Amino acid sequence: MLEHKILEQLQEIVGTQNVLTKKTDLITYSYDATADMPRQLPDVVVLPATTEEVKRIVELARSNQLAIYPRGAGTNLSGGTIPLKRGIVLSFQRMNAILEVDADNLTATVQPGVIIQDLNNAVAKFGLIYPPDPGTVATATMGGSVSECSGGLRGLKYGVTKHYVMGMEVVLASGEVVRFGGKTVKNVTAYDFASLFVGSEGTLGIITEITVKLIPAPKYRRSLLALFDRLEDAGNTVSGIIRNHVIPATLEIMDKKTIETVENYAKVGLPTDVEALLLIEVDGMVPELVEAEAQVVLRVIQENNGNVRMAATDQEREQLWAARRAALPALAQLSPTTVLEDATVPRTRITDMLLAIQKIAEKYRLNIGTFGHAGDGNLHPTILADASNQEEMIRVHQAVDEIFAAALSMGGTLSGEHGIGIAKMKYLKDELGQPGLALMRRVKEALDPDYLLNPGKMVPLKGE
Amino acid sequence: MLEHKILEQLQEIVGTQNVLTKKTDLITYSYDATADMPRQLPDVVVLPATTEEVKRIVELARSNQLAIYPRGAGTNLSGGTIPLKRGIVLSFQRMNAILEVDADNLTATVQPGVIIQDLNNAVAKFGLIYPPDPGTVATATMGGSVSECSGGLRGLKYGVTKHYVMGMEVVLASGEVVRFGGKTVKNVTAYDFASLFVGSEGTLGIITEITVKLIPAPKYRRSLLALFDRLEDAGNTVSGIIRNHVIPATLEIMDKKTIETVENYAKVGLPTDVEALLLIEVDGMVPELVEAEAQVVLRVIQENNGNVRMAATDQEREQLWAARRAALPALAQLSPTTVLEDATVPRTRITDMLLAIQKIAEKYRLNIGTFGHAGDGNLHPTILADASNQEEMIRVHQAVDEIFAAALSMGGTLSGEHGIGIAKMKYLKDELGQPGLALMRRVKEALDPDYLLNPGKMVPLKGE
Repeated sequence: MLEHKILEQLQEIVGTQNVLTKKTDLITYSYDATADMPRQLPDVVVLPATTEEVKRIVELARSNQLAIYPRGAGTNLSGGTIPLKRGIVLSFQRMNAILEVDADNLTATVQPGVIIQDLNNAVAKFGLIYPPDPGTVATATMGGSVSECSGGLRGLKYGVTKHYVMGMEVVLASGEVVRFGGKTVKNVTAYDFASLFVGSEGTLGIITEITVKLIPAPKYRRSLLALFDRLEDAGNTVSGIIRNHVIPATLEIMDKKTIETVENYAKVGLPTDVEALLLIEVDGMVPELVEAEAQVVLRVIQENNGNVRMAATDQEREQLWAARRAALPALAQLSPTTVLEDATVPRTRITDMLLAIQKIAEKYRLNIGTFGHAGDGNLHPTILADASNQEEMIRVHQAVDEIFAAALSMGGTLSGEHGIGIAKMKYLKDELGQPGLALMRRVKEALDPDYLLNPGKMVPLKGE
Repeated sequence: MLEHKILEQLQEIVGTQNVLTKKTDLITYSYDATADMPRQLPDVVVLPATTEEVKRIVELARSNQLAIYPRGAGTNLSGGTIPLKRGIVLSFQRMNAILEVDADNLTATVQPGVIIQDLNNAVAKFGLIYPPDPGTVATATMGGSVSECSGGLRGLKYGVTKHYVMGMEVVLASGEVVRFGGKTVKNVTAYDFASLFVGSEGTLGIITEITVKLIPAPKYRRSLLALFDRLEDAGNTVSGIIRNHVIPATLEIMDKKTIETVENYAKVGLPTDVEALLLIEVDGMVPELVEAEAQVVLRVIQENNGNVRMAATDQEREQLWAARRAALPALAQLSPTTVLEDATVPRTRITDMLLAIQKIAEKYRLNIGTFGHAGDGNLHPTILADASNQEEMIRVHQAVDEIFAAALSMGGTLSGEHGIGIAKMKYLKDELGQPGLALMRRVKEALDPDYLLNPGKMVPLKGE
């Protein structure tokens, strides 16, 4: 608990009812969606309503050397929002206004607490979409997803969050308020600070307003389900589709374990005797384009010995996607603890990575189902375990170590979309090297010399 | 001239023939493509062949506190490559290898000296393109265009350089070599350093390798020329096309002055009694899509009182684009000095900005032709003057001041694609504010504490 005087000052800034200190209130802010992560009750949760309030909270925190933990909906998967040290959790649930949808400039400007799906609902009436679509699109906030650079199912064709952020307002650790970028497609006036803040996990500044790019919603789509007896065939299909210059909107993969589990759980009619499944959707603005692309995908699947089913109706399409959506919940109900990773490799290495994960699962006698965004090389090996079994958790951690080592050895990365947070900090040097890690620190210290902004995440603490 | 000992050390690093000190050799490195900019002969020009050589040159420069000016082809338009202070010009003409084209991962990895067009030629055999296309695509290098975040004609649909840079190798001012990003579409492992270095004008580090994203080349295209008696109609057509959810590959505008000049110069058959011209190209993967989009564009032009011509053949298309390509050379031959600016506004403000430029031209009795990328709101007001006429140049500078003030007042930016360099430094604070400028400095000093990398560009020198 913080000193009474500080709590009073916080109440003075945001109003008494927007300073939470009761344990029953604090408990929901003590964790995020990451498994296998210690909970930490915050000292206080503050709900600001304006940039000016955020600025005053930052100044107060700074003069008392308190940490600040900006928080969206807490859906993140790397421990990024856990309040490790003494300080203030800053929740943006009251700053949830869609400030403007500018359909002619194809932009929207939002406060950080806006839920991604709410933004998409608001722009739908103009026939527009905001493409980044993490699995938690109905819950996650714009501030959180910008801070984590969320990806999702449409990354291959439409890119990820950073490709859509055009401008920002940020409160720096100094309390200064800065704005950069804006509504112009082109802007080279300053360093690309907007991109620097995207994916910085709240460690460089506190985002208080975001301007994003919108695009016209594709009007037509076609979904295909392909089943393979060999992983290699699935991997070759992924590369073959790209080589034929079709960029699907989504190109998802599930391994045997995931398929079996989904079928047991959701009874969607999947055969359980195959090694891999691809779920592919092409979309576009005219039916001829979509049909031409679907035919190319169909041919590539058949050339690679795939057994294919194309959805003929919306209902059939819905059935196919129900299988994909069931992947994580189906796996999760098999065991008390679900360790969901997001090792990522160049897409041509998908097969190698799936085989590597299978080997690691055998070696450590673990149950691992893998699914993910094959078109992005972004896989979610999902380890089914029980956190109360200490011996098993040791094997889980060893397996995770090897999964990341494998991804890096294939030219991949520690995280495609979940972020570093606390969970992957220990691997950071393996990817960035000592000079890269030092560069992280230099930028962190330039913007937040006292390590007050989400300390202990993404960048090691001073002296660590 | 630098001390003999330093020159010897440079010769030892890169070989005698790769250290240029003769005035006849140095003179081509004393300027770039920016008009109205003082020339400055470099002390020495060094041509490294490897990252290791760059690293050693940086270490040598650092221990002697010499400035380093990384240089591509010198096509930039804001004075970014002029060697203002004592130091070393680092020219990448020998580091011009295309290291890899990975068609299945849709990436290419290049050294900084690769000419943009050469990269496009190399990927064309795979049916791929690297979309960013500054006007100097046949001359400009990848290192230079990444450092300036080049735009060009395809920004509206395909984005600009920063949307294509996936990974980088950089030699820091410390001499450390860092790599970040890579071949994966998704990567959130570190701060987005690749984006930070894109457009940083060589002030944060020296780029020695670049991995870019490629896309399948569009197979079909359709070009339309639209003539308008009123600027407003042209501006409304731009917004109307977007509102109808067609995103053209190019959407260019020319004002009356430019049209007249182009017609006098190139005799391409343009009527000279119109106020504005739009040149529009839609492209895509199937003819039906392109035709559907062309029909929408046609309808919007007609609804806005435009007189439209659609190219029926490749030859006709070529004629239309010859007019656009002639814009700058045609304007440039009218006067000894061509001051080419790139004020940028949200695309819905194009008409307002064109009218503002016309007023400013009248007020200062200047000849200004404006053309540019209307779809991006990225205009090139081109002031035709004579640098030897001091009184006129004072009016030119006043007009430029007002053009940028107008752009900023409309929610625009100082530079869409030319960069800040020396030319626009004095306006920087108007856009960024004092805290934004301070943030630039903090990042600069975190990466280059001694201001050795391209000093005096983009970020004011210490104490300035």
